[in-house]
Amino acid sequence: MEVQSIQVEKNTAPKEKPMTDQLEFGRAFTDHMFVMDYSDELGWHNAKIQPYQPLSIDPSSMVFHYGQSVFEGLKAFRTESGEVQLFRPTKNFERMNKSNERLVIPEIDEEFVLQALIKLVEIDKDWVPGADGTSLYIRPFIIATEPFLGVAPSRNYKFIIILSPVGSYYKEGIDPVKIAVESKFVRAVKGGTGEAKTGGNYAAGLKGQEDVAKDGYSQVLWLDGVDRKYIEEVGSMNVFFKINGEVITPALNGSILPGVTRDSVLQLLQHWNIPVSERRVSMQELADAHADGTLEEAFGSGTAAVISPIGLLCWDGKDYHINNGETGELSKKIYDTITGIQYGKLEDPFNWNIQVTQKAKVNQ
Amino acid sequence: MEVQSIQVEKNTAPKEKPMTDQLEFGRAFTDHMFVMDYSDELGWHNAKIQPYQPLSIDPSSMVFHYGQSVFEGLKAFRTESGEVQLFRPTKNFERMNKSNERLVIPEIDEEFVLQALIKLVEIDKDWVPGADGTSLYIRPFIIATEPFLGVAPSRNYKFIIILSPVGSYYKEGIDPVKIAVESKFVRAVKGGTGEAKTGGNYAAGLKGQEDVAKDGYSQVLWLDGVDRKYIEEVGSMNVFFKINGEVITPALNGSILPGVTRDSVLQLLQHWNIPVSERRVSMQELADAHADGTLEEAFGSGTAAVISPIGLLCWDGKDYHINNGETGELSKKIYDTITGIQYGKLEDPFNWNIQVTQKAKVNQ
Ligand SMILES: Cc1ncc(COP(=O)(O)O)c(C=O)c1O
Ligand SMILES: Cc1ncc(COP(=O)(O)O)c(C=O)c1O
Repeated sequence: MEVQSIQVEKNTAPKEKPMTDQLEFGRAFTDHMFVMDYSDELGWHNAKIQPYQPLSIDPSSMVFHYGQSVFEGLKAFRTESGEVQLFRPTKNFERMNKSNERLVIPEIDEEFVLQALIKLVEIDKDWVPGADGTSLYIRPFIIATEPFLGVAPSRNYKFIIILSPVGSYYKEGIDPVKIAVESKFVRAVKGGTGEAKTGGNYAAGLKGQEDVAKDGYSQVLWLDGVDRKYIEEVGSMNVFFKINGEVITPALNGSILPGVTRDSVLQLLQHWNIPVSERRVSMQELADAHADGTLEEAFGSGTAAVISPIGLLCWDGKDYHINNGETGELSKKIYDTITGIQYGKLEDPFNWNIQVTQKAKVNQ
Repeated sequence: MEVQSIQVEKNTAPKEKPMTDQLEFGRAFTDHMFVMDYSDELGWHNAKIQPYQPLSIDPSSMVFHYGQSVFEGLKAFRTESGEVQLFRPTKNFERMNKSNERLVIPEIDEEFVLQALIKLVEIDKDWVPGADGTSLYIRPFIIATEPFLGVAPSRNYKFIIILSPVGSYYKEGIDPVKIAVESKFVRAVKGGTGEAKTGGNYAAGLKGQEDVAKDGYSQVLWLDGVDRKYIEEVGSMNVFFKINGEVITPALNGSILPGVTRDSVLQLLQHWNIPVSERRVSMQELADAHADGTLEEAFGSGTAAVISPIGLLCWDGKDYHINNGETGELSKKIYDTITGIQYGKLEDPFNWNIQVTQKAKVNQ
């Protein structure tokens, strides 16, 4: 498909934009959405940009019953000079196709959907907020729409992109969180869907998340489903630990989401010649490092927060304070570098940014 | 809520009913559906029976992104005298509430939804087919509808019941199937969502299912996610093995769906004084029993097929033929007894049936 083939129906009743300081995550949506359909006969077709609107879907549509769906999450940023740029969007569409394969959903044309996304963001560019720390969150997703109750891959799908202006993740500067290590529930296991970005993984995580939230923890740290010993990831972040000068992150073992931010962190560390290893890490290893004073920093990485320092881990009822509950030096440096590149304040040596507009109107 | 409070909007343009001999599973739907909404402020409310119609749902609704959903599957049968009866519906709503708990979905009032279901089936009673082996498949389900992209339990839900007339599972009499033991993919693991009836479990199973279908197997047999040795269940059935006169089925260990048909089979076996045990069973144990000639029968149990004899198991490239690929005597006896009770041909000593109508009009 050619990007020229995308039909555009402009919204004739644009909404009022929320005030930048009142933006929450994922509650406000822009004036337009991108939609395209799939059928076995036509493949992906009927690509259009249209006013943001409810979907009309048969109650027997497979997504409601058998969870055949995938999604992605990425962001567009407004630079100081007013341009709008996307952060590593090709990585997200590449990952979406990996998720598609696991969920038996037809492949998308990565180049085409990137062009469609650029066109959509261009149309809604006034929705990209400009204040410090704000951004436009982008949610591409695919749902199975065949009206059929048999347990089988759907023959019809919708690919949709919606956009949501979001406020700063850190209202008062980057700040460490308290995380509880989950011993009862399991998010994913090797052979399952853990490395795909699909709804079921998140549904599985709600219960553990809810239980620890009551005790004041912001997220859970998932352990592996087989031995219940090895560290996997946090709710919606990958995790890193700095032990005795070396940075360690769990290897991509099949049950962990391969985060785009994780990849960016690894590239930066290598660029800086900081020793880093991707391998299996047990909670016991962390506890031992904590005991002998070599657990220097811990942080999560993800699109929403970029870097989220971990100030406290609670495991089997015992508290492990990390770096006196303060943001570590390396965590801060990574955060400043990635956000600096995203907002166009720093050079972009890895070509992570993709321009949507040149000198677009600033919405402030 | 009182059943009297259910608003009823009759369909003024009823559809033509499909011919009984052309009924497929889960493709045709009746004229009405039951819908009720949930909000934190009002709880479950707005219960209504209305014409079957598409749902209008915001693209940011949580079910599309984080898979927060549960469902059930049960059947209504038309007896020879023309009455319509439900098979063990209370078990399904009880299980739905267990699924709800795991998925952090608000509890439903089991008695109320049963009454709502009876009312719905009563209204669409002419859709319950009467030919041998046919039935009305009933699909209650709950989806998370809050328009919000945060990963958290939704604050809004829809509970829906749709009805689908289905043909006979066995067109030419009960017939054994070929099943492949899955060694690569995992459906569920202890601590995960395996014992809940939620979309993600089925999404996870599609890939394995697709791979073996190419080789002519009708379903996969899932092994446990930890040791990859112990038998769990088949695609949408629990499994039973008769070894040396004793019937064995995997115990409900937290990753297996507690099937209603499984429970019915267990009750029947006890009633007949046939030795039965619910315990861990490894594939190796089956292979050994096969080798020494004591693996007498194998069958799956589920709402769709009732009993599905297994004539062949393929494990690690090796074929294990069971009972010469023929339906076992006990499998047949259980099938005949359960279907006999469902269609009102046999006494119902366990009070499994719940009457919807007395002497309703026969749709034949
Ligand atoms: C389960 C999970 N792990 C890790 C991540 C981090 O991935 P990324 O850096 O691509 O946002 C996310 C967030 O998207 C996630 O949902
Ligand atoms: C995964 C799974 N196991 C077992 C069963 C059998 O359960 P039931 O006998 O309640 O239909 C089903 C079907 O509903 C199922 O989906």
